[in-house]
Amino acid sequence: MLDGERRAISAAEARRRIRRGEIAGQTGGLAPGRVQGNVAILPADWADEFLRFCLQNPKPCPVLAVGRAGRPELPSLGADIDIRRDVPRYRVFEHGREIAAPTDISEYWRDDLVAFVLGCSFSFEWPLLDAGLRLKHLEAGTVVPMYRTNIATAATERFHGPMVVSMRPFRPDDAIRAVQISGRYPSVHGAPVHLGLPQMIGIADLARPDFGDPTPVEADELPVFWACGVTPQAVIEQAKPPFFISHFPGSMLITDLVNAALAA
Amino acid sequence: MLDGERRAISAAEARRRIRRGEIAGQTGGLAPGRVQGNVAILPADWADEFLRFCLQNPKPCPVLAVGRAGRPELPSLGADIDIRRDVPRYRVFEHGREIAAPTDISEYWRDDLVAFVLGCSFSFEWPLLDAGLRLKHLEAGTVVPMYRTNIATAATERFHGPMVVSMRPFRPDDAIRAVQISGRYPSVHGAPVHLGLPQMIGIADLARPDFGDPTPVEADELPVFWACGVTPQAVIEQAKPPFFISHFPGSMLITDLVNAALAA
Repeated sequence: MLDGERRAISAAEARRRIRRGEIAGQTGGLAPGRVQGNVAILPADWADEFLRFCLQNPKPCPVLAVGRAGRPELPSLGADIDIRRDVPRYRVFEHGREIAAPTDISEYWRDDLVAFVLGCSFSFEWPLLDAGLRLKHLEAGTVVPMYRTNIATAATERFHGPMVVSMRPFRPDDAIRAVQISGRYPSVHGAPVHLGLPQMIGIADLARPDFGDPTPVEADELPVFWACGVTPQAVIEQAKPPFFISHFPGSMLITDLVNAALAA
Repeated sequence: MLDGERRAISAAEARRRIRRGEIAGQTGGLAPGRVQGNVAILPADWADEFLRFCLQNPKPCPVLAVGRAGRPELPSLGADIDIRRDVPRYRVFEHGREIAAPTDISEYWRDDLVAFVLGCSFSFEWPLLDAGLRLKHLEAGTVVPMYRTNIATAATERFHGPMVVSMRPFRPDDAIRAVQISGRYPSVHGAPVHLGLPQMIGIADLARPDFGDPTPVEADELPVFWACGVTPQAVIEQAKPPFFISHFPGSMLITDLVNAALAA
């Protein structure tokens, strides 16, 4: 599918095509202006604690919706959503080990599974671009650099671990605008958690991200760090629940929510 | 007057006491929660251009009110205001040279004078303190450090010159909060204009401010710079109008406006 065609289709149409297998891979650029979300699916006996973990850590884990146990619908995000089939690719884990990366999880679905959809940085990147700010990782066609930090998440009994952050470099005046603009979107990570002094949050070398690709920071730029949706992913993998399903990196759930409507 | 008494009186009562000469000097801490303003008084044939200059430079020159030519009232800031007598101390200039620093300008008043009141940093410092941020210059009892920058103001025919900024150091997470909070107050300088890289805006040595007192910046802090009300003062002094009156530094006009009501 051409770029123009990707941009022209609605969120519901994108989900239909994903469900039919006509769209695979990355969801970036699909149904622009619509909120895309990170997906985490856990058994009910882990889900309550995970919800508490998210509420305690709203910056890395902003909850957009929680499904009912055993139910694949998420009506607040789109009338027709079936979380078993509407994400291009999933990762299935047993006891912390990845056992499959299917394009449909119908065969793994269980009556006790609870689906979570969490806000993702795509949603605050749109208004940054709209304001004329440059996002260098997008210009370079690379994955935003992400780093494990020394900022501890607020732990529950089984969920704990460091906050993972994404980094985007900006000139100082643009960094100020980026704080103001992203701060209006608390349900999709909100304002940055740090800027300017990476060593203070345990990042020794910006050129060596823990995830994603390096993005150079020029002498007239400051590195700006946002809480990242990889945080809950890493926290769950570390907790090793007996069963867990997530979206595949970059293959998000496309919702009917309008990005601009999230602005506080 | 004791500190507690200073804090207890209303804005109108503070102005009455200033008018009667019972309160002199600095207005900081008087009538907390009420907006205080910088004052600039110019002949009508300079006032229109100065208003244009302010509208072109809203961050250093946020206009709270403009009086009518020859009229000392500013009813939008307080029903009883008399700009000739309600500021504790003034500076009177002729052709750029200070000729007096009186506590009342009734004898200098003319039918062609236009009074401007511009927002001041006191107004965004209150909500920063309310949010639990520390302002080190207040803790040290010193005047905030101010610097001439290489950021040019948007010039008119006779008014031009560099933006002057004030600097407050914060840890990075507090700097982000400070951007978010002060950004809600665009009518009193709003969000910072720069942070983190002072040499980029022409500041060679933070320890040598052009005005005010030095404030140390620790290794875990970033210097955060706001557009400063000294900018219009310096721009007018440089333009050398035949006549000009300003408030004396730190001796502001206390208005009835509620700080919190300025939040955008």
